Amino acid sequence: MGSRLYSIVIDSRNPSSLARFWAEVLDFKVVYEEEGSEVVVARDDSTYPGLIFVPVPEPKAVKNRLHIDLNPHDRDVEVERLIGLGAKRVDVGQGPEVTWVVLADPEGNEFCVLRPRDGGV
Amino acid sequence: MGSRLYSIVIDSRNPSSLARFWAEVLDFKVVYEEEGSEVVVARDDSTYPGLIFVPVPEPKAVKNRLHIDLNPHDRDVEVERLIGLGAKRVDVGQGPEVTWVVLADPEGNEFCVLRPRDGGV
Repeated sequence: MGSRLYSIVIDSRNPSSLARFWAEVLDFKVVYEEEGSEVVVARDDSTYPGLIFVPVPEPKAVKNRLHIDLNPHDRDVEVERLIGLGAKRVDVGQGPEVTWVVLADPEGNEFCVLRPRDGGV
Repeated sequence: MGSRLYSIVIDSRNPSSLARFWAEVLDFKVVYEEEGSEVVVARDDSTYPGLIFVPVPEPKAVKNRLHIDLNPHDRDVEVERLIGLGAKRVDVGQGPEVTWVVLADPEGNEFCVLRPRDGGV
């Protein structure tokens, strides 16, 4: 019997601000927040993983070793929505041939917007 | 309407090996594998996010900006199981007071084993 994948924790310079960005991205809500401390966003209390943003003093330094892939309803429409929320296009060497779009959140964390697909991973 | 949190992608020196470690951790299975390419582990085809391990040439360099929190059935029993699978205890400055245990996977990616809890995040 394994452990449950419970949450994805993201080091952040500004947890409140970054949590609100990701809540908009995923249509999650802020379910826990304490001044100067961690902020939790999730779809609801029984769905996980949610995202937890924890304050750290240091900025992001290198390409993240872990990143999130998003499955949108329409890739290009979603990319424009996310750029409107504060995401930026970034080049991590993905080249012109790939079917996904690489963006970074307002603190520079890379993530990918896939072509829509059904099913699981 | 937001995007779905579809997968967590993990840069890896040895995707096959690291995927097998995490499949054991989460009781997931390998659902896709191609020689020298990405490896996907998930609970089943309709549950997400799964984990995707993609090959990269560079080793992990700094403390990860994103990490996974695990919800076990018994924290200390689970920590011993995970160490048996190849995890190691690491010090990221968490101090002696915290209720979770910080481990690293065989490629050094930090993750936390929480005290058991019900519900969502």
